[in-house]
Amino acid sequence: MDADALIERVLERSVATGEVPGAPPLLGRAIRHAVFPGGARVRPKLCVAVTAACGEGRGIEAALGAGAALELMHCASLVHDDLPAFDGADTRRGKPSVHAAFSEAIAVLAGDALIVMAFDTLLRESRSAPHLLSPLMTILIGAVGTPHGIVAGQAWESEHTIDLSAYHQAKTGALFVAASMSGAAAAGLDPAPWRALGERLGEAYQVADDLRDVLLGEDELGKPAGQDASHLRPNAVQHFGVAGAIARLKGLIADASDAVPDCSGAPVLREIVHGQASRLMPKSLLRNVA
Amino acid sequence: MDADALIERVLERSVATGEVPGAPPLLGRAIRHAVFPGGARVRPKLCVAVTAACGEGRGIEAALGAGAALELMHCASLVHDDLPAFDGADTRRGKPSVHAAFSEAIAVLAGDALIVMAFDTLLRESRSAPHLLSPLMTILIGAVGTPHGIVAGQAWESEHTIDLSAYHQAKTGALFVAASMSGAAAAGLDPAPWRALGERLGEAYQVADDLRDVLLGEDELGKPAGQDASHLRPNAVQHFGVAGAIARLKGLIADASDAVPDCSGAPVLREIVHGQASRLMPKSLLRNVA
Repeated sequence: MDADALIERVLERSVATGEVPGAPPLLGRAIRHAVFPGGARVRPKLCVAVTAACGEGRGIEAALGAGAALELMHCASLVHDDLPAFDGADTRRGKPSVHAAFSEAIAVLAGDALIVMAFDTLLRESRSAPHLLSPLMTILIGAVGTPHGIVAGQAWESEHTIDLSAYHQAKTGALFVAASMSGAAAAGLDPAPWRALGERLGEAYQVADDLRDVLLGEDELGKPAGQDASHLRPNAVQHFGVAGAIARLKGLIADASDAVPDCSGAPVLREIVHGQASRLMPKSLLRNVA
Repeated sequence: MDADALIERVLERSVATGEVPGAPPLLGRAIRHAVFPGGARVRPKLCVAVTAACGEGRGIEAALGAGAALELMHCASLVHDDLPAFDGADTRRGKPSVHAAFSEAIAVLAGDALIVMAFDTLLRESRSAPHLLSPLMTILIGAVGTPHGIVAGQAWESEHTIDLSAYHQAKTGALFVAASMSGAAAAGLDPAPWRALGERLGEAYQVADDLRDVLLGEDELGKPAGQDASHLRPNAVQHFGVAGAIARLKGLIADASDAVPDCSGAPVLREIVHGQASRLMPKSLLRNVA
């Protein structure tokens, strides 16, 4: 089974815990709606790719757990960010967002349950390597909570004066940093040297997202377009223009590749990182730019 | 320092992690608003009392961490339950609820951050006894997530057909069960025999809450009164009448006391449980009944 299928299997195992007899049915359905079918699963894939590159065969199981936990946190943040109190987005991944399909109450609870489920996933999937639980939990908590995780990142949008660097690092960078660092930790290595890879990739994804938000329509996005402008959020296209933003994206991908620490699988991992560049700039995007 | 002060100290340490330079200020203030000044802190007190009773001096530090984690989860659930999508309560503990004082967006994020902070507290406070992290996390997750934790309990309110027993056990019982079981686990004991104590106390608190909701005014409650009736929620006073509900509350306290497993500190713990009866039925409540 390849890594993609293994990631889906761990996510399936987690989501199924909320669908047992005696569980409230709507909540279970809402959680499944939020997690399947998924997006690109780029955070768990990065986590597992790092472990595969530097782990000499060790730690894949823990990396799958840590990656799935990050993906569940990502799903939780999408469910809550789509709420009327934030973006008020009625669509996500080409279907109704959770609050539109169920209710606001169920969407709040589904997000809460997904956060708890992420920790449960980490605990369950590190059972055979319990010494990894504490370091992986430390990384996960840092990526999600306050002061520097995605919750803090979202909270900057409620401030009159926004700390732009803290905002971007927390809102989108944190889960990428956690993905690369968790991959190293799962392999039993010091995660610190792997931070820069996650930081650069996180920035690249943010720029790609900003380009999509400006250039693509709702049909291609699967969610409302022009959200940054309508919510007065900073967007890289404002700062750099379209061509400038694309150049920046390419530069960040090159920086991310350079940031891969030396290890036996580094060449393969650098190839994977370069491969992201074309994934991040799909043909439709390039057509719109051309 | 007594247990009450130690509990406040651990909670203070946790809340302070969201107030460091670089943290979004409103979120930090909202989290503090949600946690201080607190309610009766009955869940952490129960957790620590169990460890003190059965631990022969061991495990108090871990019990303080587990108790504080449960309290932070309780605070998170209050912040989210007060949102307009649920109770829409503008007051809590005699002051504005978090969404009323800040905003709905900040209230959603504060609840999310408190959930993550609870896990962080468990991790941090069990550093000196890392073998306790996994069992305490298992109990915490069971009490909070789906299928049987407080999130699932709240989700039952969105179902057309409500499983009343699952609803009550999950919505109010789960954190009490977790408190008594975590106290035993922190002491290095099998937590299973301590479940019944938490169950009975949780039921007693639910009945006491139902009585308060019906009998007290907003001034004494510190939050809107008559919420159960206006939200069509089941309430013990409907089923048993006022006198019947008071008799049931007394019976549950006696059952809780009987449920304390034998251990060196069992007599003291049983006294503490009996002492809860008078705390649960304050003079003002008895005056209204007379």
